Amino acid sequence: MSVRENRQVRLTARPRGIPQPEHFSLFTGPVADPGKGELLIQNRYLSVDPAQRGWANDEGNYSAPVPLDTPMRALAVGEVIESNVPDYRTGEHVYGWFGWQRYCVATPDAVLRRVVPSSLPLSANLSVLGMNGITAYLAFHGLGDPKPGEQVLVSTAAGSVGSFVGQLARIVGCRAVGLTGSAEKAAFAKARYGYADMINYREVVDLGAAIRSACPDGNDIFFDNTGGAIADAAIRTMRLRGRVIQCGTAANASWTPVPTGPRPEREILTRRLRWSGFIIFDHLAEFEAAAARLAEFALAGKIVHDEEVLPGLEHAPGAIAKLYRGENHGKLIIEVD
Amino acid sequence: MSVRENRQVRLTARPRGIPQPEHFSLFTGPVADPGKGELLIQNRYLSVDPAQRGWANDEGNYSAPVPLDTPMRALAVGEVIESNVPDYRTGEHVYGWFGWQRYCVATPDAVLRRVVPSSLPLSANLSVLGMNGITAYLAFHGLGDPKPGEQVLVSTAAGSVGSFVGQLARIVGCRAVGLTGSAEKAAFAKARYGYADMINYREVVDLGAAIRSACPDGNDIFFDNTGGAIADAAIRTMRLRGRVIQCGTAANASWTPVPTGPRPEREILTRRLRWSGFIIFDHLAEFEAAAARLAEFALAGKIVHDEEVLPGLEHAPGAIAKLYRGENHGKLIIEVD
Repeated sequence: MSVRENRQVRLTARPRGIPQPEHFSLFTGPVADPGKGELLIQNRYLSVDPAQRGWANDEGNYSAPVPLDTPMRALAVGEVIESNVPDYRTGEHVYGWFGWQRYCVATPDAVLRRVVPSSLPLSANLSVLGMNGITAYLAFHGLGDPKPGEQVLVSTAAGSVGSFVGQLARIVGCRAVGLTGSAEKAAFAKARYGYADMINYREVVDLGAAIRSACPDGNDIFFDNTGGAIADAAIRTMRLRGRVIQCGTAANASWTPVPTGPRPEREILTRRLRWSGFIIFDHLAEFEAAAARLAEFALAGKIVHDEEVLPGLEHAPGAIAKLYRGENHGKLIIEVD
Repeated sequence: MSVRENRQVRLTARPRGIPQPEHFSLFTGPVADPGKGELLIQNRYLSVDPAQRGWANDEGNYSAPVPLDTPMRALAVGEVIESNVPDYRTGEHVYGWFGWQRYCVATPDAVLRRVVPSSLPLSANLSVLGMNGITAYLAFHGLGDPKPGEQVLVSTAAGSVGSFVGQLARIVGCRAVGLTGSAEKAAFAKARYGYADMINYREVVDLGAAIRSACPDGNDIFFDNTGGAIADAAIRTMRLRGRVIQCGTAANASWTPVPTGPRPEREILTRRLRWSGFIIFDHLAEFEAAAARLAEFALAGKIVHDEEVLPGLEHAPGAIAKLYRGENHGKLIIEVD
C-alpha cells in the first residue's frame, strides 16, 4: 500500500462563466495503488487553460463537464513512478490528462504523448510542445493555409497560443499584427513574438480603424481566440477569401443567454470568408509530428516561449480567473510542490 | 443607322434595401449601331435575381453599384443580330450581362457563355443552366463537400437556387430537408425538388425544434440563402465538422445599420463548423463545365426546373420586390416583348 499523500484541487461548486477560487477546494488524502494496466504518475507541472472554463461549466460543450467533487480536469506533465503497463517504465515523463493533483493513477489512454528528452525544460511540454504550441501550429497551418507575403491578425497575441502564432507566421513569411490588452504586453509581444505591429485594444477608441491602420491592405488570416467585439471589428477588415480561425471565445464570460452582436453573414458572403472552428482534441494523431516540428523550431532558436510558473497547488483555484483577467505573462503553469 | 427602337428599364432612384417600382423608369430611344469589336444583341429573356438588390444599392458590396439613369444590371439571354466580332456570328445565342433592355450593344467580355443548342428551352439558360443552377452546383459541391448519406438543410429551398440544391443533394445520395415560407411551396418542393421533408418557417413556433424534428441527427451541410433567424436556428443544429454555405442574405432587407443576432462564434468553435461565402462571379472559369453537367442532368430527367415568366419589360420594375416577397414560383424571368 502506498504511503504517499495526495493533494488535489477539486471542483466543488458549479460555476456559471469563469471559475473563481470559491468553486474549488483543496483536498488531501491517500493515493490509491495503481491496478493492473495502470500507471502511477507524479505530476510536476499542471496546465492552466482558457478551455477549463468550459469544462467546469455544465453548458453544452465539446466535452463533458467535470463532475463535482473530482479533481479539476487539466493537462499535466509528470513522471511515471510506478508502472503496471509493459510499455511504460518508471522514470519516464509523460504528458496527458492527469488533473490538478500531485499524484494520478491513470491508464495509458490518459497519456497524450511521451516526453521526448531534449535540452528544453520539462515545463515546455505544457507550452511550446504542449496544447498551446500544437494548437497554434495545427490551426494556423491546417485552417489558415498561410502563404508567404500574407497578412495575419491575431487576437490574444501575447497569450499562450497567440505568442506562437506570431512566430509561426513569421517563419512562413507572413506579416503578423497582434491584439492584446495592455501597452506592456503589446511592447513585449512586438519585441519577442514575431509581430510587426501590436494593438492595445483597451486604449483605442475605434478598433476597426486601429486594425485598418496597422493592416492597411486588410487581413488574409484572422486567428481568433476571443470572439466578441474584437472579432466583429476584425472580420470587417478581411481581404477577399480570407480565413478566420476560431480557436477560442474568451471575450464572452458566459453563453447563457447567448450574447448578441452584429450579424456576420454578409461579411462572410461578400468577402468570401472561410470561418472555421478548431479544437485541438480532434487532432491527436497529429500531435507527435507537430511537437517534433515545434521542438526543432525551439531548439534552433526560431521560436521562443514564455511561462509564468506559480509555485504550489494552492495557486490553482484562482488561476483560471487570473488568466481571464489577462494578468499572466506567457503560459500559466502550476508547479507541483 | 439602326431604325430599331430600344426599351430600357433604368435605375433612376437609389434604393435603400429592396428596390421597388418607384426606383426604376421605362425609357424608350434609339439603338446605337455596334462599333468595331462590338455585338448587337437582341434580348429574349431577362433574369430577376436577389443579388440585384445589392447592385442597386450603394452600400459597399461585392460589385460596384449600378450608376443612376442607366439600364438595370441584369443577366440575360439574347440573340446576336449584328456582329463586328469575328468570333461571333449573327443568329447565335449568348448569355451574359446585357441588362434590363430590349437591345444591348456589348463587347465580348459581357458574354459569360455561349448557348449550346439543345432540346432545353432558351429560357433554361437563365435558370438550370444559368447563374442559379451553376451557383447551386458549384457552391454545393465546392464548399459543401457532400458525401453519400449526409444530411443537408437548405433555406429558400423552393427558390431559384434552392430548388436545384435539393435535387443535387439527392443525386449525390444525401438526404435533403428544405425551408420555405408557405405550405403550398413546401408541398411543391417536396413533390418536385428532391426534398425528403420541408418546413414552412412561417407556421412553426420554434424553428430550431422544427429543424431538429425533421433532421433528428443534425445537419452536415446547411446551404443558406437567407441569413437571419433561419441561419441562427440552423447553425445550432449542425453536426460536428458541418459545412455552412453562405450563398445569400435575403432575410435582411438592409445592412445599414448592421442588424444584430445571437453570436455564432461559440457554435463555430464547438461544432468545428466551416462557414464559407460563395459568390458565383469568382467561378467564371468553371461555368462551361458546370453548365454541361447540369444540361446532362436536365436532359436525363434527373433535374427539373421551374420558371415564372412575366411577359413584357414593364414587369421588370416590380420584379425584385416580388422576389423578396416570396411570391414567385420558380425562377423569375422577364420575357422581352
